[in-house]
Amino acid sequence: MSKSVTPKSKDYSKWYTDVITKAELADYGPVKGTMIIRPYGFKIWENIKNIFDLEFKKTGHTNAYFPLFIPKSFLNKEAEHVEGFAKECAIVTHSRLTADDDGSLTPDPNSKLEEEVIVRPTSETIIWSMYKKWIKSHRDLPLLINQWANVVRWEMRTRLFLRTSEFLWQEGHTAHATEKEAIDETHKILNIYQNVVENFMGIPLTVGRKSDSEKFAGAVETFSIEAMMGDKKALQAGTSHYLGQNFSKAFDVKFQDSDNKEKHVYATSWGVSTRLIGALIMVHGDDKGLRLPPKIAPIQIVIVPIYKSDNDLEIITEYVSPIVNYMKQNNISCYFDTRDKLSPGFKFNEWEMKGVPLRIEVGMRDLNSKILTIARRDNNEKSTVKIDDANKLLVNNLNDIQKCLYNEALNFKNQNTFQADDYNEFKKIISDGGFVECGWDGNEETETKIKSETNATIRCIPFNQEKKLKCIYTQNPAKYTVVFAKAY
Amino acid sequence: MSKSVTPKSKDYSKWYTDVITKAELADYGPVKGTMIIRPYGFKIWENIKNIFDLEFKKTGHTNAYFPLFIPKSFLNKEAEHVEGFAKECAIVTHSRLTADDDGSLTPDPNSKLEEEVIVRPTSETIIWSMYKKWIKSHRDLPLLINQWANVVRWEMRTRLFLRTSEFLWQEGHTAHATEKEAIDETHKILNIYQNVVENFMGIPLTVGRKSDSEKFAGAVETFSIEAMMGDKKALQAGTSHYLGQNFSKAFDVKFQDSDNKEKHVYATSWGVSTRLIGALIMVHGDDKGLRLPPKIAPIQIVIVPIYKSDNDLEIITEYVSPIVNYMKQNNISCYFDTRDKLSPGFKFNEWEMKGVPLRIEVGMRDLNSKILTIARRDNNEKSTVKIDDANKLLVNNLNDIQKCLYNEALNFKNQNTFQADDYNEFKKIISDGGFVECGWDGNEETETKIKSETNATIRCIPFNQEKKLKCIYTQNPAKYTVVFAKAY
Repeated sequence: MSKSVTPKSKDYSKWYTDVITKAELADYGPVKGTMIIRPYGFKIWENIKNIFDLEFKKTGHTNAYFPLFIPKSFLNKEAEHVEGFAKECAIVTHSRLTADDDGSLTPDPNSKLEEEVIVRPTSETIIWSMYKKWIKSHRDLPLLINQWANVVRWEMRTRLFLRTSEFLWQEGHTAHATEKEAIDETHKILNIYQNVVENFMGIPLTVGRKSDSEKFAGAVETFSIEAMMGDKKALQAGTSHYLGQNFSKAFDVKFQDSDNKEKHVYATSWGVSTRLIGALIMVHGDDKGLRLPPKIAPIQIVIVPIYKSDNDLEIITEYVSPIVNYMKQNNISCYFDTRDKLSPGFKFNEWEMKGVPLRIEVGMRDLNSKILTIARRDNNEKSTVKIDDANKLLVNNLNDIQKCLYNEALNFKNQNTFQADDYNEFKKIISDGGFVECGWDGNEETETKIKSETNATIRCIPFNQEKKLKCIYTQNPAKYTVVFAKAY
Repeated sequence: MSKSVTPKSKDYSKWYTDVITKAELADYGPVKGTMIIRPYGFKIWENIKNIFDLEFKKTGHTNAYFPLFIPKSFLNKEAEHVEGFAKECAIVTHSRLTADDDGSLTPDPNSKLEEEVIVRPTSETIIWSMYKKWIKSHRDLPLLINQWANVVRWEMRTRLFLRTSEFLWQEGHTAHATEKEAIDETHKILNIYQNVVENFMGIPLTVGRKSDSEKFAGAVETFSIEAMMGDKKALQAGTSHYLGQNFSKAFDVKFQDSDNKEKHVYATSWGVSTRLIGALIMVHGDDKGLRLPPKIAPIQIVIVPIYKSDNDLEIITEYVSPIVNYMKQNNISCYFDTRDKLSPGFKFNEWEMKGVPLRIEVGMRDLNSKILTIARRDNNEKSTVKIDDANKLLVNNLNDIQKCLYNEALNFKNQNTFQADDYNEFKKIISDGGFVECGWDGNEETETKIKSETNATIRCIPFNQEKKLKCIYTQNPAKYTVVFAKAY
């Protein structure tokens, strides 16, 4: 399990899959395109999920659960929405299997459904069909609901965490009395996304609005957080959509306002998914495996005892017990790895592969000197510390690792983000890898041409639009400053 | 919303649905058999889920996530399992919709899947296909994995929370080196189930083993917790299965033991679902709506101010703020209901419907006397207390309500549990409603006859088997003392 991974520089894609497999984060499922999230990977997801969930609740959102199955006809109600999702959805047509003469199972023709049902690719349609029932008056607004769920988008090309037929996510769906409130909500959520991804996951972001061709099928405006992966490609890590009245009109959701007039409500939707784990791996991972920011690491500190006899282990156990207890009291996840018959070297490799931020090594000789060794996963630095100072130093180190991983990623992102005003220069940067900040004339045609010539897409239109640039492609006055990159 | 419900005594089934609707716990989904869990109902589920999750983690289990989609052929691998699930499953046959000439959507024939996939009715098969990959040595055991997930069993008769096509649950799947360890695990989980359902949800249980005809399709033995609903019918509230080597043999999962021999592993699986919310409603609810045990109530205390002006409200806010703060510090969920333009009476009704354990009423006149009124939801008792004593009394009351709800349910269950040795007597009790403890000769034929004649099933074979009885039906010496009842 703890064998080494393919070096990043040799084959980035292979490196990525190796890390996932060897750190036991995930595995391929038997149905093409599906994925198993293994316990260690799932614990990372639980940590990320809990942080988001708390932030959503703090801002007045509640969780609910809507059905997996959507009537086929619902998809058709919002014109752009159906375009976006009908081409890649799982369709349930029968409700019973029956045995053939040879004993193999086949869908029972008698169980054919009158109307096929779709496995949700996203839940706007089913949720808005219910909001019609629940929203009558301005007193029912705002309605701020989130759900944690699995969704399905049929994918032929699988890439663990990034592109799978089924994935886990949260999807928020809110209804508001006014356009302003809905737009404010869209931005509030975008801020939560940015805060959690940057400050907990240690991933620096570029934030902004999507171009029309890249926005969500059914949205008026889509905002996104974009991260730079270790291969300098972009990953869309979360989106927040202002839906205007598109869905409230499609599902005829009106409320009686305080002026007694009936109005269609304004909507938002927003989501982050297990894809974030893919970002985590690609932003922080190195040739030894994962590197996890302490704030989301399932194990923050691992203690590896170096011993020959049971008696040695007993003495070491007593020696480190004040650390174990202190960490427990302070909700710091600390694992004392006393697994038998595995060498310390094996354990070091395993915990490095799994990205544990801090490792403590302690052997019999350290006892007399009242010391122990701390190894940092982020920079491989080892230091010898006095046992009496250990608790404080460990906590300081965790805080420092959190910062260092972010700063390292930020430096990498900055070093690989370029301004360009010449299209040849642009093409060279895109080909070498990186984000390009440049002017765009705002024409979809220009965007399409650039995409077809370079594979780069507009990742977002940053909020800060102070610069007066020329379009990188047409050299006409730019309508927007945008960020281009190849993306996952 | 807070209108009254159909009285229990008039129409129990209507009462049940009324409570769910009016307390805003759930709603029917657009696809037949599906359900929406609304925010208030979902919060109850979150509370229950968090308690179980903690207990599972304390006992060494970790969460993971396995795919929704199972290859059709997997279902066929365990003979009894396929019998149990093939008749009521959702089958995905296509992966794309295409528009007809008239614009309506239809499954694209070109997207027909080579092998149909089944939406998981339970995950034994897919999990054991992965365990084959992960389990090699005795060092990999025990493997103690749980998942929180949605599952689908196609149901034509819908009953919110009790019988829906899709429901939420946890399913534990463990692998062990020995039979003894696996059986111990089965009982360990049964104990967790009993503890949480009795001590947190306040629902008294009958616990035991299932008869062969009632056990899980694929299990060697099934154990269950059974609760008595308000209409004296039984509800199976959770099951823990000892699977023996049935699945490890079906999926050929072997490990190398410490004696270097290859052996098939021993397995368990176990689950509780959102059905527990149905139990909660039917065990504690009354004609005013829900009554929630404090330990799982989303809101434990509601404070309703009685005021005429904004100034009044300000004064009351200050008056109750020490209570609000104290509860917050002690992690007691306390909601100060300052919603405007709703009368206190309306609020009282609403919170009674929603089962909030304690209500505080406070008006301007109470301020001078330094008092407030506490109303208990469980027994409708009101008392006036000094504000200075309020915090302590409120906490005491919450503890007392938790006990009282359990005791009330236990008395009800005891009063409606009967011993019988005569079949006519048996039939009368079953017809009137209740649990019957009696002898059974152990023949499936006898069990079938009793079921067809009375609709009663063996709910379980309790662990305590000291009595020597005669079979209620054949009058032959009984093999077991069992509990019969009609069940949901």
